[in-house]
Amino acid sequence: MRALVFDGTTVKYRGFQPDPVAGAGEALVQVHLAGICHTDLEIAQGYMGFTGILGHEFVGTVRHCADDKWLGQRVVGEINCVCSKCDMCQQGLSTHCRQRRVLGILNHDGAFADYLVLPVRNLHVVPENVRDEEAVFVEPLAAAVQVLRQVPVDRRSKVTILGDGRLGQLVAQVLQRTGCQPLLVGRHTGKLAVADRLGIRTILDAELTVRRDQDVVVDCTGRAAGLERALALVRPRGTIVLKTTVAAGQPLNLAPLVIDEITLLGSRCGPFREAIGLLAQRQVDVTGLIARRVRIDAAEGLFAGAALRDTLKVIITFDR
Amino acid sequence: MRALVFDGTTVKYRGFQPDPVAGAGEALVQVHLAGICHTDLEIAQGYMGFTGILGHEFVGTVRHCADDKWLGQRVVGEINCVCSKCDMCQQGLSTHCRQRRVLGILNHDGAFADYLVLPVRNLHVVPENVRDEEAVFVEPLAAAVQVLRQVPVDRRSKVTILGDGRLGQLVAQVLQRTGCQPLLVGRHTGKLAVADRLGIRTILDAELTVRRDQDVVVDCTGRAAGLERALALVRPRGTIVLKTTVAAGQPLNLAPLVIDEITLLGSRCGPFREAIGLLAQRQVDVTGLIARRVRIDAAEGLFAGAALRDTLKVIITFDR
Repeated sequence: MRALVFDGTTVKYRGFQPDPVAGAGEALVQVHLAGICHTDLEIAQGYMGFTGILGHEFVGTVRHCADDKWLGQRVVGEINCVCSKCDMCQQGLSTHCRQRRVLGILNHDGAFADYLVLPVRNLHVVPENVRDEEAVFVEPLAAAVQVLRQVPVDRRSKVTILGDGRLGQLVAQVLQRTGCQPLLVGRHTGKLAVADRLGIRTILDAELTVRRDQDVVVDCTGRAAGLERALALVRPRGTIVLKTTVAAGQPLNLAPLVIDEITLLGSRCGPFREAIGLLAQRQVDVTGLIARRVRIDAAEGLFAGAALRDTLKVIITFDR
Repeated sequence: MRALVFDGTTVKYRGFQPDPVAGAGEALVQVHLAGICHTDLEIAQGYMGFTGILGHEFVGTVRHCADDKWLGQRVVGEINCVCSKCDMCQQGLSTHCRQRRVLGILNHDGAFADYLVLPVRNLHVVPENVRDEEAVFVEPLAAAVQVLRQVPVDRRSKVTILGDGRLGQLVAQVLQRTGCQPLLVGRHTGKLAVADRLGIRTILDAELTVRRDQDVVVDCTGRAAGLERALALVRPRGTIVLKTTVAAGQPLNLAPLVIDEITLLGSRCGPFREAIGLLAQRQVDVTGLIARRVRIDAAEGLFAGAALRDTLKVIITFDR
């Protein structure tokens, strides 16, 4: 099969990668579309020490599975492959399984390939009215929904989202549904315009007035400096939700966090079922975030430069 | 009057500093005892950019006040002098007042002097059965109590406190009262022995087994590296309470906070009334934390070296 493989140094296209094989309780999924995430770029810079097939955002069709009912189903899949036995799994925190493997991120080949394998219990059937180019957003949309599971937001909340990239846009759309009027802060006029068209308030970072008056600030910048910016915006006793994971650390003085008694919440994966529901009910608009489609055999070069950092969602296609 | 004054470079003893004058709504307090806090040492390193009389932990007697009922009262005092008008004050978050001055920390002379001035509403009368050498701990004890206001802890909670210094010891005593069995981690056999004697579990940092299984970790190390240690100890979805404020930043990679969805809580001042109650009811033992008493005219040298960093509480006295 075709695949994009990270060898620890560079991302390479391989035309004859061996197909994966579904084990007990697993399904072999043929990938229709896969999305490139900021995390993939960080992994290609050495984050997580991963090697193998990249990619964790996908939609596809089950081609092999011991359980017949899954055959031919169009699916998306949760990315954490878990043990069900450790203390975290037993406490209902299986996304934090101590022995987990993570699709395209940790000890498990990913979605930038013709086929991937996942446990069937990770799979969610995609409703008919959700198209492939929408379903490929379920994983990052779930991560956006997670913010609302962690911090109460209502129509009176003052909320700022830092980062006009893919995740920031999704978080802005999800939070907008609470009735609050989130402010999306970014550095790219073109990306902010995408949110503008959905009625989301936007502003260029350079034009932002800093007042330390925001109840909630969500850092989706993907840059280590995002947290410092968030600390300057949030009010005393306010909440910062940190979505940014980067390979590099950054000198940071957390004294403001202590003095202002800020709550800082790390936020990662979210609920797939809710994300699928939002798409099926047309509550969010994700296809407007697609900037480019690139066939897998032409995608290798995307990871070499900085091009991906300044575009919205790039989708990998598998048509021959 | 006598005072210890930080001039922006060094802490100097002055024998003839002018007495402060109580304005409207204020009281002039003669200081009996004052405690040296880690924050004072950080201020003497440039933290907060403060200059003036240091010190914010004290017990004393009201000597001048427009309201007669305060005259002669033995008091402790909250350190934030607030405006009552800003958005924070109006929301009941007056410790975060936008215009606040803070005793010995921010735009307000402090307690390392024969006399200090505070608004009368900051004062709390000390019950007769609480001695001066106990009352001088009310401010840091309140800061320890604040931890319980921010994070639920019960007897089943796995709790680790990093730092066997003054604040770490107080936090350990306060948390022990919930029925949980907190583990106090430190680097000084002698300091850990003080907690041992109160039945608190203790361990040398070098001997600690790191399992990422703690529900709550409280960082009272006073070192920028404390947070990294806390991140290694806390369980996924656990809580870190950050008490450390330091003048210097430190390179830090917060990816583990995101991946493990940790809640990080900045924690500062706490409820004086509860702290006084704990002392009056003999629920905590603070005098065991007193390492030395130093008369104010001999205290200047304490701030020059590193001696204070390795001792428990040093009390400044004012007897002639």
